[in-house]
Amino acid sequence: MAAAASSSSPPAVITCRAAVAWGPGQALVMEDVEVAPPGPLEIRVKVVSTSICRSDVTQWQSTPDLFPRIFGHEASGVVESVGEGVTEFQVGDHALTVFIGECMSCKHCVSGKSNMCQTLGLERKGVMHSDQTTRFSIGGKPVYHYCAVSSFSEYAVVHSGCAVKVSPTMPMDRICLLSCGASAGLGAAWNVADVSKGSSVVIFGLGTVGLSVAQGAKLRGASKIIGVDTNPDKQEKGKAFGVTDFINPAELNEPVQQVVKRLTDGGADYSFECVGDTGVVSTALQSCSDGWGLTVTLGVPKAKPEVSAHYGLLLSGRTLKGSLFGGWRPKSDIPLLVEKYANKEIQVDGLVTHDMPFSDINKALELMLQNRCLRCVIHMPKRQD
Amino acid sequence: MAAAASSSSPPAVITCRAAVAWGPGQALVMEDVEVAPPGPLEIRVKVVSTSICRSDVTQWQSTPDLFPRIFGHEASGVVESVGEGVTEFQVGDHALTVFIGECMSCKHCVSGKSNMCQTLGLERKGVMHSDQTTRFSIGGKPVYHYCAVSSFSEYAVVHSGCAVKVSPTMPMDRICLLSCGASAGLGAAWNVADVSKGSSVVIFGLGTVGLSVAQGAKLRGASKIIGVDTNPDKQEKGKAFGVTDFINPAELNEPVQQVVKRLTDGGADYSFECVGDTGVVSTALQSCSDGWGLTVTLGVPKAKPEVSAHYGLLLSGRTLKGSLFGGWRPKSDIPLLVEKYANKEIQVDGLVTHDMPFSDINKALELMLQNRCLRCVIHMPKRQD
Repeated sequence: MAAAASSSSPPAVITCRAAVAWGPGQALVMEDVEVAPPGPLEIRVKVVSTSICRSDVTQWQSTPDLFPRIFGHEASGVVESVGEGVTEFQVGDHALTVFIGECMSCKHCVSGKSNMCQTLGLERKGVMHSDQTTRFSIGGKPVYHYCAVSSFSEYAVVHSGCAVKVSPTMPMDRICLLSCGASAGLGAAWNVADVSKGSSVVIFGLGTVGLSVAQGAKLRGASKIIGVDTNPDKQEKGKAFGVTDFINPAELNEPVQQVVKRLTDGGADYSFECVGDTGVVSTALQSCSDGWGLTVTLGVPKAKPEVSAHYGLLLSGRTLKGSLFGGWRPKSDIPLLVEKYANKEIQVDGLVTHDMPFSDINKALELMLQNRCLRCVIHMPKRQD
Repeated sequence: MAAAASSSSPPAVITCRAAVAWGPGQALVMEDVEVAPPGPLEIRVKVVSTSICRSDVTQWQSTPDLFPRIFGHEASGVVESVGEGVTEFQVGDHALTVFIGECMSCKHCVSGKSNMCQTLGLERKGVMHSDQTTRFSIGGKPVYHYCAVSSFSEYAVVHSGCAVKVSPTMPMDRICLLSCGASAGLGAAWNVADVSKGSSVVIFGLGTVGLSVAQGAKLRGASKIIGVDTNPDKQEKGKAFGVTDFINPAELNEPVQQVVKRLTDGGADYSFECVGDTGVVSTALQSCSDGWGLTVTLGVPKAKPEVSAHYGLLLSGRTLKGSLFGGWRPKSDIPLLVEKYANKEIQVDGLVTHDMPFSDINKALELMLQNRCLRCVIHMPKRQD
């Protein structure tokens, strides 16, 4: 189906299949889309695997405009062509795409203490960073990107600063999780909270991110890791990632924070909001100790973007911190995580509950909507172009 | 007037003058009150100086119950008598009273990382920590305490864990500010934010606390210290405490945070909310840099106890932290601040704008309500008992 340029000629427009969202929450439609050649400093990637992240679903459902659009950002692929000025990647390289980039030269990138690249930060307008236009079109009409990745397509153009080269020996259908969810959780525990040995941790929401926070806390030697989830199946799953105590709020006759306080002699050292519900942030703050408790909020809310909490929770010595991609700088840090995966120091495979062909992507979205999966990995067609 | 026990007999009830609040916001009334002897581990202090803190005024105006009550907590005095088991203080010792205590033995005190003593923490019910009763009465009817200090009285009973011994060479009418406001600001900059050399700081509200934050930031070598206040007089005052740039929001045609961002190349490294307005917290967050910006909230709000902010401000790498008494542990840390004052390493005197006799305390409250003062120091009668 896809008509790719040959490796000897300059990159041309590719026509390939993509799962296009035509409106908020509307089932994706497989369409033939044109994918422009990569612009300067961009690469075009043949997507191999893309897992579905909660924020794909949230944005697909709640963004009123920027349609038609191609979602997807947690992905791995092979470089098909490179744009002008790209020296880091060559055709055939394996890569992870990342929804935030690292230009290596802006104030934030050189600071060494931030992953909020000023050039390649979170892209919210559905276009490419470089020229504010799209690389996708259908019949000449633009199709919006998502987070400057859009991996629900056989081919995607990304800025080379938003991709990380990985060894071809790595399983593409598993390490794709390191391009967002698994890394976000590990980084929240390691970089943002800096969980210490022997500490107590409570995690609200045991999805891919929450379980990865648990894994991160366990590897840091936390002695008590409390998982909170309304899905009782998460109790067993949680154990595999280090959760020592499970609380199902639906089964309680008292506020969650009271139970957490009992289990932790007054409050956990760290609490993590991984539900994507700003209303949970206050509960997370109340669940951690006064004096030194730290609450990290990772979720992208489906509704109510305002976080709120009684000032007294802060005044009594608590800290509230946000975490985007776990504080990781994509190029500087993600290769280390891939290496840890290769060395079996971190587990990722257990986060994949479903593998599906690209054609079943709507089923995968449905599973995510129904909270019946952790990660569904979409396998793109293997045909050669 | 006051009838004190002689030093040889066991402490007896003292009758003395106190400025009693009979209802929310009602002018204080000088009354003869009975002050019971100190209970076990308590001391009775002859108040020498008490400065008026914004939170006295806020609580006096906004607390609907716990009347009659004696406010005041930022104070210095001389130990008049000691209760059973007190070994740290002797009659005649000079002391600062502190609104939170340090028992030295609870989980928080032994942690070394918290000033939220579990035994002598912030007392909100208007009684003493030890037995939940008052030491003040009028005609046998109890009069409530404030923060277990109540220094708007010639004599006050405080827990010995809520007092700090100081050298008799120190000027009582100035070091009283170290028992709350000045210390709170310095500690917010040093302990809570840990302001670094060369950094940029923005302070909302240049009262005693905000100016002390500025001083703390200056002593840490911050290169840009922006003060924000609607009172134009604070521009000059701010300079004396290290403020390098002044913004009067009342004179702006654009949001404060935009001006701060221009002055700081994208956002300050640290922002401090010292107004006591939870609505300012969001502005303070927006004024600090994504990636690493830290907002410290110190104020006790007059209204709306909920702090709220868009989740994106946190997710993009900002941190929100509360600060009570600047993170200082009274007994462990305040003697060091007094020493710094003695060595002229920190300035406190410049924060005192008014000195008044006890009989003028309502004038002092009025000045505070009208934002026409920094600290008014109330000088208690000097008569010997």
